Amino acid sequence: MNIFYKKTLMKIMNNGKTLSVAESCTGGRICNEMAKIPGISKIFLLGIVAYSNNSKISTLKINSKKLNKYGAVSKEIAKEMAINILKISKSDFSISTTGIAGPTGFSNKKPIGLVYFAIASKKKIHIYKKNFKGSRLSIQKKSTDYAFNILDEFIK
Amino acid sequence: MNIFYKKTLMKIMNNGKTLSVAESCTGGRICNEMAKIPGISKIFLLGIVAYSNNSKISTLKINSKKLNKYGAVSKEIAKEMAINILKISKSDFSISTTGIAGPTGFSNKKPIGLVYFAIASKKKIHIYKKNFKGSRLSIQKKSTDYAFNILDEFIK
Repeated sequence: MNIFYKKTLMKIMNNGKTLSVAESCTGGRICNEMAKIPGISKIFLLGIVAYSNNSKISTLKINSKKLNKYGAVSKEIAKEMAINILKISKSDFSISTTGIAGPTGFSNKKPIGLVYFAIASKKKIHIYKKNFKGSRLSIQKKSTDYAFNILDEFIK
Repeated sequence: MNIFYKKTLMKIMNNGKTLSVAESCTGGRICNEMAKIPGISKIFLLGIVAYSNNSKISTLKINSKKLNKYGAVSKEIAKEMAINILKISKSDFSISTTGIAGPTGFSNKKPIGLVYFAIASKKKIHIYKKNFKGSRLSIQKKSTDYAFNILDEFIK
């Protein structure tokens, strides 16, 4: 269990708030890190790992026109993922990730390591763009670290 | 990356089939193990980590009467989780897990380590019950190992 992740999550728990997660490139790593913490079911309402575009549309209710226009790895889709899972789960906070973990699926415009994040509450939404270096696993790990960092900032 | 998990998933990939996962007690660990494998997005359509009962009802479309009658940790709910995510994701195979990872949430009838699993396709569904020993993390890990074992058997 990562103690920095736990510290952030304990702040949410101590405030009686709840959290949900919509993951694409991190593939369940954020959910899994949360689930390691005893008692987390009090605050962790829902995680959706929406790998396919169809799942993004059917389960996360992502607008298919937007998905076609901007692509799954974009700030627009990160934003919509976070907003939609907040509504679906009725949680106080949400995190979303969408990016290229590699080694395939990249392009000139969207290189391996490009990841968009969004953190949302009913009142505000912050969107972040990062370019990570490293292997698929390293990009997933760095993205998870970063997600907890921005969540910690957001809930302050 | 776990090579035994990978071997099972490669069989699904080589047959052009797809997989989705509905996790409760394993909290995203199965999704995360899958996501470590390059190219997995070809077969891994959707993962839902439905910790709260509300999420089970709203996202996994679990029947609320059944949920009240049998409890979330039951063979009936494991079965419905697997059937429903198969339909929602339109995948060829699905895995579900629901159990008591501890250290809280247990009862005499439902002790820590009790986990129900279901593996489904359009044609058949297998349900399994296990009693694992160990810490929360150990139960999550053993459950994930077991899920890949029964998936491997199922797809033979």
